[in-house]
Amino acid sequence: MERRVRDATCRVYGRTGWSGFSIEAVAREAGVGKASIYLRWTDRKNLLVDSLVTTLATVADVDTGSLREDLRLIVTHHLRYYFGDLKEAAFRMATEASLTPELRETWDTWRESQALAARATVRRGIERGDVPADVSVTLVLDTLLGGALMHALVTPQAMDGADIEELAASMVDFVLAAAHA
Amino acid sequence: MERRVRDATCRVYGRTGWSGFSIEAVAREAGVGKASIYLRWTDRKNLLVDSLVTTLATVADVDTGSLREDLRLIVTHHLRYYFGDLKEAAFRMATEASLTPELRETWDTWRESQALAARATVRRGIERGDVPADVSVTLVLDTLLGGALMHALVTPQAMDGADIEELAASMVDFVLAAAHA
Repeated sequence: MERRVRDATCRVYGRTGWSGFSIEAVAREAGVGKASIYLRWTDRKNLLVDSLVTTLATVADVDTGSLREDLRLIVTHHLRYYFGDLKEAAFRMATEASLTPELRETWDTWRESQALAARATVRRGIERGDVPADVSVTLVLDTLLGGALMHALVTPQAMDGADIEELAASMVDFVLAAAHA
Repeated sequence: MERRVRDATCRVYGRTGWSGFSIEAVAREAGVGKASIYLRWTDRKNLLVDSLVTTLATVADVDTGSLREDLRLIVTHHLRYYFGDLKEAAFRMATEASLTPELRETWDTWRESQALAARATVRRGIERGDVPADVSVTLVLDTLLGGALMHALVTPQAMDGADIEELAASMVDFVLAAAHA
């Protein structure tokens, strides 16, 4: 039941954004009663943030021993949800969450934890000598993760798993070339 | 009056997104009558798209003779609206427009024209020999413009004009280093 409600939450939010988002619409979409949603989640904010955080990618534990491989996994993960069923919810949340007073704090905390994990991944690469010590961790991550988001925003066509892995590899190679220059 | 209505449109849209956007709210925000808005714009879709397209950056005519300089101007332009008064409207439109059936076509057409202009800028750089001929125009633009968007999304603090120019320069140098590698 929880999984079904979370999936319905992401679909409804993807269609309407926060201003059209309601527990009633989620109940209808999931085919469950409102009361059973309130048994588990206190309000629409709690329901939405929990569903997105549970369902979206987490990069916290990527550590293959190779920076190139770690970054490929992270970018592939991001591209998969930008090109998958959660596309609408992920796009909206990327920009809307910080603009919405009710969502800002929880979302920023979660995004911060994701950013710290990604930064730690690049720093481990620097310590291993995978990239020079003076590389800007911020530039590497902004161009890589922003590049994945931008590519998805301007590419309405679907991409299959092989295309996504190929794209992730070429983005990582491109950015690591800059890091080595 | 047109300028005042367009500015009010961007502010209202930035606060509410499409599902909360109405001509009534814009009239209230601008302090004008609804009737005078309808004299100039046929409906809320027309009002929103016209206001955003008129107000947001256009990169169509950047051609300084140097790819590095052209790209710095383009990225500075993007960062200025991501960190300026239009921030909320720009963030929302970047992701929401293509998800909203009423907005998709007009917005995609405009974005496509912007993308073609940016691609032409990079191609002129290739023809002049500013970057190698085998560079991926898509990778250059996705990482650069996506990097600017991502930086703005994860940086809630304000940036002044000098900071923005410095950031734009370091992003362009980073991506051009990849293009040369």
